[in-house]
Amino acid sequence: MLAPATDAALIILLSLDARPASVVAALKELGLDVEVLHLGDRTGLYARDPRGELPAESIGRIAGVERVMSLSPRAPLALATKGREGGGIAVGPARFGGGFVSVIAGPCAVEDGESIKSIARQVAAAGATALRGGAFKVRTSPHSFQGGGIEALAELHAAAREVGLSFFTELTDPRQVAQAAELVDGIQIGARHMQNFPLLLEAGRTGKPILLKRHMAADVDEWLLAAEYILTTGNERVILCERGLKSAESHVRYLLDLGVVPWLKQRIGLPVIVDPSHAAGDWRLVPALARAAIAAGADGLIVEVHPRPETTRSDALQALPPADFKRLLEQVRALAALDGRQLASLETADAVGG
Amino acid sequence: MLAPATDAALIILLSLDARPASVVAALKELGLDVEVLHLGDRTGLYARDPRGELPAESIGRIAGVERVMSLSPRAPLALATKGREGGGIAVGPARFGGGFVSVIAGPCAVEDGESIKSIARQVAAAGATALRGGAFKVRTSPHSFQGGGIEALAELHAAAREVGLSFFTELTDPRQVAQAAELVDGIQIGARHMQNFPLLLEAGRTGKPILLKRHMAADVDEWLLAAEYILTTGNERVILCERGLKSAESHVRYLLDLGVVPWLKQRIGLPVIVDPSHAAGDWRLVPALARAAIAAGADGLIVEVHPRPETTRSDALQALPPADFKRLLEQVRALAALDGRQLASLETADAVGG
Amino acid sequence: MLAPATDAALIILLSLDARPASVVAALKELGLDVEVLHLGDRTGLYARDPRGELPAESIGRIAGVERVMSLSPRAPLALATKGREGGGIAVGPARFGGGFVSVIAGPCAVEDGESIKSIARQVAAAGATALRGGAFKVRTSPHSFQGGGIEALAELHAAAREVGLSFFTELTDPRQVAQAAELVDGIQIGARHMQNFPLLLEAGRTGKPILLKRHMAADVDEWLLAAEYILTTGNERVILCERGLKSAESHVRYLLDLGVVPWLKQRIGLPVIVDPSHAAGDWRLVPALARAAIAAGADGLIVEVHPRPETTRSDALQALPPADFKRLLEQVRALAALDGRQLASLETADAVGG
Amino acid sequence: MLAPATDAALIILLSLDARPASVVAALKELGLDVEVLHLGDRTGLYARDPRGELPAESIGRIAGVERVMSLSPRAPLALATKGREGGGIAVGPARFGGGFVSVIAGPCAVEDGESIKSIARQVAAAGATALRGGAFKVRTSPHSFQGGGIEALAELHAAAREVGLSFFTELTDPRQVAQAAELVDGIQIGARHMQNFPLLLEAGRTGKPILLKRHMAADVDEWLLAAEYILTTGNERVILCERGLKSAESHVRYLLDLGVVPWLKQRIGLPVIVDPSHAAGDWRLVPALARAAIAAGADGLIVEVHPRPETTRSDALQALPPADFKRLLEQVRALAALDGRQLASLETADAVGG
Repeated sequence: MLAPATDAALIILLSLDARPASVVAALKELGLDVEVLHLGDRTGLYARDPRGELPAESIGRIAGVERVMSLSPRAPLALATKGREGGGIAVGPARFGGGFVSVIAGPCAVEDGESIKSIARQVAAAGATALRGGAFKVRTSPHSFQGGGIEALAELHAAAREVGLSFFTELTDPRQVAQAAELVDGIQIGARHMQNFPLLLEAGRTGKPILLKRHMAADVDEWLLAAEYILTTGNERVILCERGLKSAESHVRYLLDLGVVPWLKQRIGLPVIVDPSHAAGDWRLVPALARAAIAAGADGLIVEVHPRPETTRSDALQALPPADFKRLLEQVRALAALDGRQLASLETADAVGG
Repeated sequence: MLAPATDAALIILLSLDARPASVVAALKELGLDVEVLHLGDRTGLYARDPRGELPAESIGRIAGVERVMSLSPRAPLALATKGREGGGIAVGPARFGGGFVSVIAGPCAVEDGESIKSIARQVAAAGATALRGGAFKVRTSPHSFQGGGIEALAELHAAAREVGLSFFTELTDPRQVAQAAELVDGIQIGARHMQNFPLLLEAGRTGKPILLKRHMAADVDEWLLAAEYILTTGNERVILCERGLKSAESHVRYLLDLGVVPWLKQRIGLPVIVDPSHAAGDWRLVPALARAAIAAGADGLIVEVHPRPETTRSDALQALPPADFKRLLEQVRALAALDGRQLASLETADAVGG
Repeated sequence: MLAPATDAALIILLSLDARPASVVAALKELGLDVEVLHLGDRTGLYARDPRGELPAESIGRIAGVERVMSLSPRAPLALATKGREGGGIAVGPARFGGGFVSVIAGPCAVEDGESIKSIARQVAAAGATALRGGAFKVRTSPHSFQGGGIEALAELHAAAREVGLSFFTELTDPRQVAQAAELVDGIQIGARHMQNFPLLLEAGRTGKPILLKRHMAADVDEWLLAAEYILTTGNERVILCERGLKSAESHVRYLLDLGVVPWLKQRIGLPVIVDPSHAAGDWRLVPALARAAIAAGADGLIVEVHPRPETTRSDALQALPPADFKRLLEQVRALAALDGRQLASLETADAVGG
Repeated sequence: MLAPATDAALIILLSLDARPASVVAALKELGLDVEVLHLGDRTGLYARDPRGELPAESIGRIAGVERVMSLSPRAPLALATKGREGGGIAVGPARFGGGFVSVIAGPCAVEDGESIKSIARQVAAAGATALRGGAFKVRTSPHSFQGGGIEALAELHAAAREVGLSFFTELTDPRQVAQAAELVDGIQIGARHMQNFPLLLEAGRTGKPILLKRHMAADVDEWLLAAEYILTTGNERVILCERGLKSAESHVRYLLDLGVVPWLKQRIGLPVIVDPSHAAGDWRLVPALARAAIAAGADGLIVEVHPRPETTRSDALQALPPADFKRLLEQVRALAALDGRQLASLETADAVGG
């Protein structure tokens, strides 16, 4: 049972020249309960909305109101997950949280049936437990390659099944969800669709695990409220994924926010993973950022891997060659062990029943 | 007839320790034509892709390549609009560009049939030529008011028709487009959906004027490429709308980028309007920003107006009272006249055949 | 007489699991007066520090404290200037505020005595009332031209005096201030030195007008507190100058924050001017941004002007040719007149006694 | 011997409507050597400035020039350090780089002689090899505590000497440098003074190790060019310190840029350390960020430690209690060992001759 939002409650600071009685009257007319707070030479109010839909912003519009401070949590369903992490979220052999670290790996886009199978074998051998690959691509330009669509999805499915990996793919249109949901193990919501609320609701209703990437300009509140949309469907299998923020810097494509990992883990119970590939935009920086993410406490990684990046039609600069990926996973295994965690693997999957 | 993308062409700078012959061989294997450039003690290459789908990023992945500089325009359809502005884009009595400035005004969300009619009358009397109002709201939180849906759309339509205004409303889901397109005069794509490409394509295919807001973290390239998606449908009636960028500042909600107005107008032929309300997030700053936008050359404004902001369930802080809006439109009229432009009005509409 | 800071006062919100008595005890041990606020199911405290040096951040470190909201103004001296604008700040014939708009213009750096005189004559003829020119340059690279030093300052002084303009130049080192103060009419503190507090204090103590540029990453609070450093010296002749903020955008060099103009003018009494040249970094965008600044209510402009930009060793891209500058000043004059203001000129200077 | 800057060289792309002959003539008049590059239907130029002071920006101002791409390194002295790391930079028992990781720790500001000695003993026991402590504080507000000045510096010196640590303190004014240099082991240049070039030059000339913090809005280029100023004095003992960037996020005070660590280490030979305390602004996030920094390859940390943060007059929220610091240093030791590095200690110092 999900926790309800608490009744909305506010502290209101009046301006020095306000007439408290008239502010109180205005608030009461809006249906609020109000009490006066004596704050030295200032006056404050404590206000409560019995209907629980108090718009703090509207209160700010009343003459004589200087500042409004809300006492109500904005994402109560997300906060209510804290303490209920249990064994983390399992997606086939992958397991995020609950003492396990998992790595999702694969190409940016699915190119053809043979090459995705070859990559699946290589990332599985290195220690990944889930496959990634784009079928419906979100490309900034309409003149760029747009992905292989439903056919690519079938190839991804076949490759994952053959090797024993679970797999994630990004969906971008609410009209794709029903059909795709029959095949996919986990639905990825890309950064650019983090606030595509019709899509979030459709995806949530499938009951499938949702990998929710943070928009490259979203603050944590906006990200948690996007998760909150999914949680309102009753689906609690949400995995948050930090992938870097836009900035004025140009030496990395996006600025990876690793502080958000402990911040989230101290407040909510959903797993948090990191995408070092899209953040760096440069394969030479990916291993260092991946290690940093695990050392900061991330529950997993999603990494782009490709054996011949110079031939791909998207994201060539950030794809890690398989040999570098293998070396990285050895480091990830050692880092996880340092704080008593375990890299999920195709072998442990049976043991833990994932 | 829209201009095609030119063949992709690149300048490639080799690193000091590169072996030019092996880079040239790698490029030829990818199907490129290559010529060597002698640059003092450095070596460069000029490369051309006869298929016109050269992925510059992939070239950067070849050993020995230090930097890649593309010579091809990224948004050729948008650039091709330059010089074809003509009389601007007319939407009923509103006219954006071609010597005309137009103002779209109305509430954040449609609340009920009577109040939207009352606001429509007030903004028309002040000098607006189009009505705005949200029916399908994009709300950061699932616990916030989500808009009145198709019913609200009908009320908006009725109010606009009664007063003689055209109207714009935001669509957020490709599944809404067909039904809504029967009623709306102009489709607004909100900032958060600027890169919702399935939605852009559906909206574009209706042939209706599209008001394309810039995402609060989009650079100009990303914005123009979103317009480019619409232009690929053959619909050239795209109105760009700057509404402010995310920043570390807190005295305004978003940082309005007025430099983008002359930058765009020097390069493309689509009208550019400005939304001072969402940028400011504070009605006291709206008139100054609106005046600045017109002085910078914007082809119009979209402004939130509400007679009793403290009772609304969204965006209360930024709504301008009708009296302030009226005063603002007088200033806008005078500013437009300073550089020989005219504020479109219900009266001039007949004269210009809009 | 400058207003003193008020006693520090705080509202403290306790966490749900806090023991109020122990928080109160901790606060009293730090010397604070405390009262309990009843906030529904939450507990708050109102705390006051009789010594007026209460560190809100330290309070946040006490176990059981969830949030702290300060009731004290951070920049009381800056706020106290509100309502005391009077006739604005006059610097020779230039006058910023009090119904006057003034334009400072000139080259990025002083190159030689003849060329600075020639530019001074041209900007004065167009309508500028103050000359700008760098003698001590702040250059990002040590390999760039560093300015002509004290000799350049003398040339700037000679040029300004010959034409009847006042002049501003940037100082960068507290050791320069005493000598330079004998010549300059106004001291410019550049963006990169906005928080060079030893320099601010030395400059403030000269009693000369100080043109305080906002750092390209400073929020308004930081900017006002830099002004506050100058105000503590008793020097109230501070002119604030917005010159654009760093952003992820690349079509303009800095993002000009015009919302800050009305925001400041609604709260403090110091003049606010705008530098469109450094913001744009591109002369083709300068006139539009300059007009926008005046339409937003700015009290003046500082504009880079150079007759042969391609020969200069700094800031070539943003310098306006004299003919464009002349045209711009005509527009500025008309824009100022729209809201009842006047462009200060060498002629009006005598009339107003500036 | 420091490497000289190479001659400046440029690739210039002409606009489609340019007349190449007139651009070439303009460049030659500026003293450049020019060769024409044939780029399909476009024309480019390769230009070289024999005097080596070619201003790329000025070239951009010539009619017909569309884009300019510089082939010259901007910070040649910084780049020349690559490959000359040797044993890293030793500052007493601390050693940054060359296989060693070192931790600088201590309070934000020196409060009194006894407490700084007590903290020095605690951080040394935990494994720090250098002490930090502010004597000349850079405070955003003039109404905040400004540090204990030269007296605090003497107390810091006494505490460090008693325990056997080296110590760093921030200098903020070129006039302090000579006197302070007699006592300090390492000079810290704070973020806000990163581009205070007169200060950088004075500090560099002392020959002391310089801890150069990155400004919270500086891109890597600006940071390296600040280091370049110091390197021009012949002082190569520069330690770079990343401390987080300003952003729109509020859950951390600054966004720590860990991607810059591998980026720098792949290009230059100067040590790079990380300040997780100022980045986080919250002690609960400091250990995770500190671990991430070491996992990303940082050569050390600078950490704020205080036994009773709620009593301090600055930075209370970010100070780590000594017990947490001790636990963190055990983790740092284990992380360093994972990639074959060693945490420098008072014991190893003798062995390595630091």
